[in-house]
Amino acid sequence: MKVAVIQSHILVGDFAGNAERLLAAYKKAVASGTEIVVAQEDAIAGYCEGDQRFYPSFLQAHDAALSVLAKNIGDVGLVMSVTVPNGGQGKPLFNMGVLIQHGTIKNLQAKTNLATDTVFNDYRWYEPNTLGIEIFEYRGLRLAALICQDLWEKYDAAHGEHFFTRYPISELKGKGVDLLLVPNASPYWWGKGSVREEMVRDVTRELGCAVLYANYWGGQDELVFDGRSFIMNKDGVVIGVAPAYADAVVVADLAGPEVGYFSDQDDINALEDALVISLRDYVEKNRIKGVVIGLSGGIDSALVAALAVKALGPEKVVGVRLPSAYSSDGSLTDALALAKNLGIRLETVPIADVYETLRKSVTPLIGFHEPGEIAGDVTEENMQARIRGMILMAFANRFGFIPIATGNKSEFSVGFATLYGDMCGGFALIKDVLKRDVYRLAENCNRDGIMIPKNSITKPPSAELRPNQVDSDSLPDYPTLDPILELHIEQSKGVEEIVAEGFDRKTVKRVVLMTARAEFKRRQAPPGPIVSKEGLAWLNRQYPISTKFLP
Amino acid sequence: MKVAVIQSHILVGDFAGNAERLLAAYKKAVASGTEIVVAQEDAIAGYCEGDQRFYPSFLQAHDAALSVLAKNIGDVGLVMSVTVPNGGQGKPLFNMGVLIQHGTIKNLQAKTNLATDTVFNDYRWYEPNTLGIEIFEYRGLRLAALICQDLWEKYDAAHGEHFFTRYPISELKGKGVDLLLVPNASPYWWGKGSVREEMVRDVTRELGCAVLYANYWGGQDELVFDGRSFIMNKDGVVIGVAPAYADAVVVADLAGPEVGYFSDQDDINALEDALVISLRDYVEKNRIKGVVIGLSGGIDSALVAALAVKALGPEKVVGVRLPSAYSSDGSLTDALALAKNLGIRLETVPIADVYETLRKSVTPLIGFHEPGEIAGDVTEENMQARIRGMILMAFANRFGFIPIATGNKSEFSVGFATLYGDMCGGFALIKDVLKRDVYRLAENCNRDGIMIPKNSITKPPSAELRPNQVDSDSLPDYPTLDPILELHIEQSKGVEEIVAEGFDRKTVKRVVLMTARAEFKRRQAPPGPIVSKEGLAWLNRQYPISTKFLP
Repeated sequence: MKVAVIQSHILVGDFAGNAERLLAAYKKAVASGTEIVVAQEDAIAGYCEGDQRFYPSFLQAHDAALSVLAKNIGDVGLVMSVTVPNGGQGKPLFNMGVLIQHGTIKNLQAKTNLATDTVFNDYRWYEPNTLGIEIFEYRGLRLAALICQDLWEKYDAAHGEHFFTRYPISELKGKGVDLLLVPNASPYWWGKGSVREEMVRDVTRELGCAVLYANYWGGQDELVFDGRSFIMNKDGVVIGVAPAYADAVVVADLAGPEVGYFSDQDDINALEDALVISLRDYVEKNRIKGVVIGLSGGIDSALVAALAVKALGPEKVVGVRLPSAYSSDGSLTDALALAKNLGIRLETVPIADVYETLRKSVTPLIGFHEPGEIAGDVTEENMQARIRGMILMAFANRFGFIPIATGNKSEFSVGFATLYGDMCGGFALIKDVLKRDVYRLAENCNRDGIMIPKNSITKPPSAELRPNQVDSDSLPDYPTLDPILELHIEQSKGVEEIVAEGFDRKTVKRVVLMTARAEFKRRQAPPGPIVSKEGLAWLNRQYPISTKFLP
Repeated sequence: MKVAVIQSHILVGDFAGNAERLLAAYKKAVASGTEIVVAQEDAIAGYCEGDQRFYPSFLQAHDAALSVLAKNIGDVGLVMSVTVPNGGQGKPLFNMGVLIQHGTIKNLQAKTNLATDTVFNDYRWYEPNTLGIEIFEYRGLRLAALICQDLWEKYDAAHGEHFFTRYPISELKGKGVDLLLVPNASPYWWGKGSVREEMVRDVTRELGCAVLYANYWGGQDELVFDGRSFIMNKDGVVIGVAPAYADAVVVADLAGPEVGYFSDQDDINALEDALVISLRDYVEKNRIKGVVIGLSGGIDSALVAALAVKALGPEKVVGVRLPSAYSSDGSLTDALALAKNLGIRLETVPIADVYETLRKSVTPLIGFHEPGEIAGDVTEENMQARIRGMILMAFANRFGFIPIATGNKSEFSVGFATLYGDMCGGFALIKDVLKRDVYRLAENCNRDGIMIPKNSITKPPSAELRPNQVDSDSLPDYPTLDPILELHIEQSKGVEEIVAEGFDRKTVKRVVLMTARAEFKRRQAPPGPIVSKEGLAWLNRQYPISTKFLP
């Protein structure tokens, strides 16, 4: 028996377009002889539609598109999930698993375990399934559909993350299911690929059935979906697989040979792909004409520019050097070398004149000091960073571009970034990438020849906002800072637990305090892709600004 | 029998301090002869602690403080809710109603209806109660505790907002409950006061019991709690009441006389109070030294300055006039008159020099145009707004102040505000106040003599960023815009529904489109108090940036 998964670009709110693409992929799968087709979660609306679900016209447009699709579905069943009104008590909607066949939509059951943690908020809109998991006969086989989170039981339980009272996989155990059909909208985090493969393999062992796993691909605001839909037979062998970040129709014979999963799915290239796709989709979906990046000669802006070129091509990327009196010659030549390597337009706008005029204008108000002259006072440093932001925004406004903020996760965590300065931009591409991984990504960019100048990678990180400044004046060295942040942010560990892992107490306290104090800045940070299990976006990390508790 | 509610300031994460204040209030109530005391929801932690709940040290500190409190509770019971670990399946915590007596903590039942809509996200952390609502004997009476949302059944059901499958009030019907004890963390919206009173009156009628309603007071980031805890007897008569925005111990005899509720609780003063308290608490909780406000001579900045003076006193408020070449003389004199009326320090920093220097610096990059010269191009206007923002931020950085963004809800909705310009600031005080209500608040500020100059109120609104500019060049008139926004944002109505209410289709489409397109700006807006049923904060309105659906 041939079976199929179809993998689509995530396009929120494009009801008719999504339905059209689903139908085209369905027809292709049917033409290849498949007997069942599985598509994504909330396949007509695009899953990330948030409170748009509350507008009456949302459901009208959704249902109209779904009807058109259903009319065109024949003898080969299409399984996916859709948003349907809940006529009964509770939340207004269901995330409903459906089997469409012969023009008819049959409800199977709603999503049972509504993800309402990390980046998820399903319970805001949906009522969970309170019935059993439906098993239905189909061409002599016994089939069941589970929606995304419903599948994650084993992994979550093993990691203390099973926040549900239902165990859908266990409920299906011993019931003779032959095929498990799983529509997903499963956002990417770096390392998830192999976790997903192993988790599904566990399911095939536990239930003795094949699994058809359909996922979205693409960037959607702060989320990225990597696709990689696949079909695994009952022996845990991958027999069909879709590429990352591409539309795909995967048809496999259940008795067919192993095709292998993705050996490189968790390596540094996968992280690069996620960042590149997220930027490309954000720019395309919002009809942005291009991106402008302040090139300091440092590694962060160099990496962002290199990724932007991969995402958009060199024509849509403009670099601007914004030297101050404290910029080294090396910074200018490093930025120039980068621009040449990338083939992008490079402009130079010195900020000294504006800075001097601004200083003169504000001296009667705030006095006159050299940057760094007053210990702990960053006024003059911030002024320079904000002039740079203003120039980039002027370019962006005139030409319909957006600036890309170049701050990394280490900086955004502890607040080592200037609000409305280097934090300004339409997208903060590497805000969920620790400095450690910025280096790895930069080295990786140079795999086929130098794109990012060696000097940008090897020189000590500096904001160059006062004489002889280096980051380590203000922060612990990154090799100390990053592991602390990983424990604190990604694993929710407090001071005591981090100290217990062998870190210096004073340093840990300082990092935890800086992280708490920087919450007000993160609230105003540009959106940027979440690529770790715990990013810094409010969507992912909901932390008060005003609190007396320090973890 | 005497009964008591105690009302505390909301102080998130101040476990020991909260416990201490609860104990002091408890003792005071006991000294007044009360036989039962009701305190707030999540009374030890402060309810708005978000993901801080996930740190192990959170529960340790929470439980230590709770133990100290419990040891000091004697024969008179204390009822409130606290955060306790869920040892079983599901979410890691319960929001548990407890009766503390004789040093012992007795669990009643967990919060049943977990609010997970509008500004709430209870399901992110808590598992709901799946048992019945406990009724317990206490000094010859039958008592039950419900936590906040559990009480709202009648109102929610009447307004199509009951998103739960449980109806806790109905479950208690006919069970002979004498006293219903309700710990709350119930955020304010303008108009909620009378709704709350009527809702509780319905409950007393339905159950034939008295209700003890304990609430927080104070500002917590984007939420405001108005307090106004009260005791209503079984005949629906208010017999004890706490003031808004103050610590209080309210003791009442169940047979005591009517004290009346708050006749003015929903008037314009109530809205003013909510804004004032929210700013005061934000500033105090975050140890901010003062606020700086760009005074344009217009009504928005004038109102914000007047509210800031009410919140912080004139010494902590600094006004800065930031005239451009397009500022009228009237604007300067209006701002001066305002500062004199308010008794605040007024500074003046013309932006023309910086603007000219900036223009010269960026001319090679983006060309040279007069503001407004290119239709639809706002580059030069934004440059001026951003120079102003930069000057305010320089003052803020130097002196430990924050700027208050002066944009109102009408502007933030349609994006009529400059990111990093007039949108910059630590707090956006009136971002949930429609222009209509800005006028009402301004008039109200003048109730005891002129604070806001008449001219600021009566002249046509203008950003003064290009020659002879008025808001109505870019926006529908506010009397048209505001009702459309109210329908669209506060009532989630789309184009068709709004047109059906008699508005011009072209205008409605334009407003809805502008609102959708401005989502990227709102994501980077400063936090500001939510004072309506549907504010613009992400906490409250979760709307994608990238979407093809227009409601």
